[in-house]
Amino acid sequence: MERREITVRFCETDALGHVNNTSYFIYLEEARIQFFSSLGYPMDVNHWNFILASTKCDFTNQGYFNQVLTVTTAISRIGTKSFELEHQILCAQTGDQIARGNAVIVYFDFENQTSAAIPEGLRNKLKDHIAGGGIV
Amino acid sequence: MERREITVRFCETDALGHVNNTSYFIYLEEARIQFFSSLGYPMDVNHWNFILASTKCDFTNQGYFNQVLTVTTAISRIGTKSFELEHQILCAQTGDQIARGNAVIVYFDFENQTSAAIPEGLRNKLKDHIAGGGIV
Amino acid sequence: MERREITVRFCETDALGHVNNTSYFIYLEEARIQFFSSLGYPMDVNHWNFILASTKCDFTNQGYFNQVLTVTTAISRIGTKSFELEHQILCAQTGDQIARGNAVIVYFDFENQTSAAIPEGLRNKLKDHIAGGGIV
Amino acid sequence: MERREITVRFCETDALGHVNNTSYFIYLEEARIQFFSSLGYPMDVNHWNFILASTKCDFTNQGYFNQVLTVTTAISRIGTKSFELEHQILCAQTGDQIARGNAVIVYFDFENQTSAAIPEGLRNKLKDHIAGGGIV
Repeated sequence: MERREITVRFCETDALGHVNNTSYFIYLEEARIQFFSSLGYPMDVNHWNFILASTKCDFTNQGYFNQVLTVTTAISRIGTKSFELEHQILCAQTGDQIARGNAVIVYFDFENQTSAAIPEGLRNKLKDHIAGGGIV
Repeated sequence: MERREITVRFCETDALGHVNNTSYFIYLEEARIQFFSSLGYPMDVNHWNFILASTKCDFTNQGYFNQVLTVTTAISRIGTKSFELEHQILCAQTGDQIARGNAVIVYFDFENQTSAAIPEGLRNKLKDHIAGGGIV
Repeated sequence: MERREITVRFCETDALGHVNNTSYFIYLEEARIQFFSSLGYPMDVNHWNFILASTKCDFTNQGYFNQVLTVTTAISRIGTKSFELEHQILCAQTGDQIARGNAVIVYFDFENQTSAAIPEGLRNKLKDHIAGGGIV
Repeated sequence: MERREITVRFCETDALGHVNNTSYFIYLEEARIQFFSSLGYPMDVNHWNFILASTKCDFTNQGYFNQVLTVTTAISRIGTKSFELEHQILCAQTGDQIARGNAVIVYFDFENQTSAAIPEGLRNKLKDHIAGGGIV
């Protein structure tokens, strides 16, 4: 599981006084990219291996300006050509859950410009991040 | 079903040359707010009746800068205290689906600051927007 | 002078209850792009002729969620290789000024990948948009 | 002078492959807020003492996804009721300037809901941050 701390920016709040829903997807994107980097992928736009097919966020508590959030990333499913991330967004100070998210990622072969089977090396790395240490 | 046309802004694209995933949630928010307005709710931050509990987006085709998108909003479920929206994001010119989304909305009683049963008047209005004209 | 109407999105507000300062630069970008389109430039990222060298915004009144804004664009200066836009952001309903902005634009020759003298045809079109009808 | 490191998020880039102009204003806002915090102001939306009257950014070099930027904040002018910040946005690795910005801030007395003379304590703190160590 990867963890990233993110501090809520002022422009990420809205007129209801809390973090706007669209901002959580910014945090999930940032967590995804750190996760892919941690797997050894260089995150170079000319050689991009991961396509976001779907993402979701459940909002369980309000977030606030200047709050420090911990965003966790784990693997909840590994398929043939795709895998699924699950995220928790927690208040770093109290540990309370603010939101939880997920993302379906399709592995993409840039040379042939097509989705492709997840290579064995990547598959092994993903297994190390399976949520709850379970078997997928 | 409500429809809204949205033109993709330049700052909503990313370095992969297409619309960034986070931008679709901006479009879904805009569609939701137009939908609530169409039901007769004034969208006043001091009297806000709808809480977003969850939202999801599936990305089926790439969107591009300056593309005109049609975002549709229909009702897919009406519960006791919550209901669910479903959205299509289509290329306005070709009708191709770019994305589809949904949102779970909790009805909120501002005077008592608590979630509450959907009032009968709102329930009837929501029924008029049920996707596919079906019964929920 | 070009005009564009923009309705403030909810996610463009902040926890102080008004439009966040960064959102005005989104509106200015949108106005610029409409302006360049009106001059006959296709706004194709593979053939981009205008580079933003500088932009500024003065905030004179607060803007609010759902407010309809009129953003005007005129030309305040035409140089050899660059020109300057000036914008007003007005409440569409009352005409009150919410903000005013400007932008310095450098003309860019994409074939040779360098800034270049403004072509005569473009210069003439820009002159038609000089603020106040004055001579630059 | 205050310094803050910011890593460019993917959603802050645009289809031209670099950081979108609107994103720099997000960075400037983040630097401002850190600066105000460093002066001992709690950055509480219910007790907000600083109003942004104007902000500007000059774009000198392109910024890129994942680039680590150093944003500096110094004071360039102290008036009776307002003061001015100047910022540099540098590539943290090379020190090259990517952009430079400024902001005019009006001191605001929240109890009386009006702009007000900068209190002596704040004035002294601002003087410690005068750019170049000069006298204003």
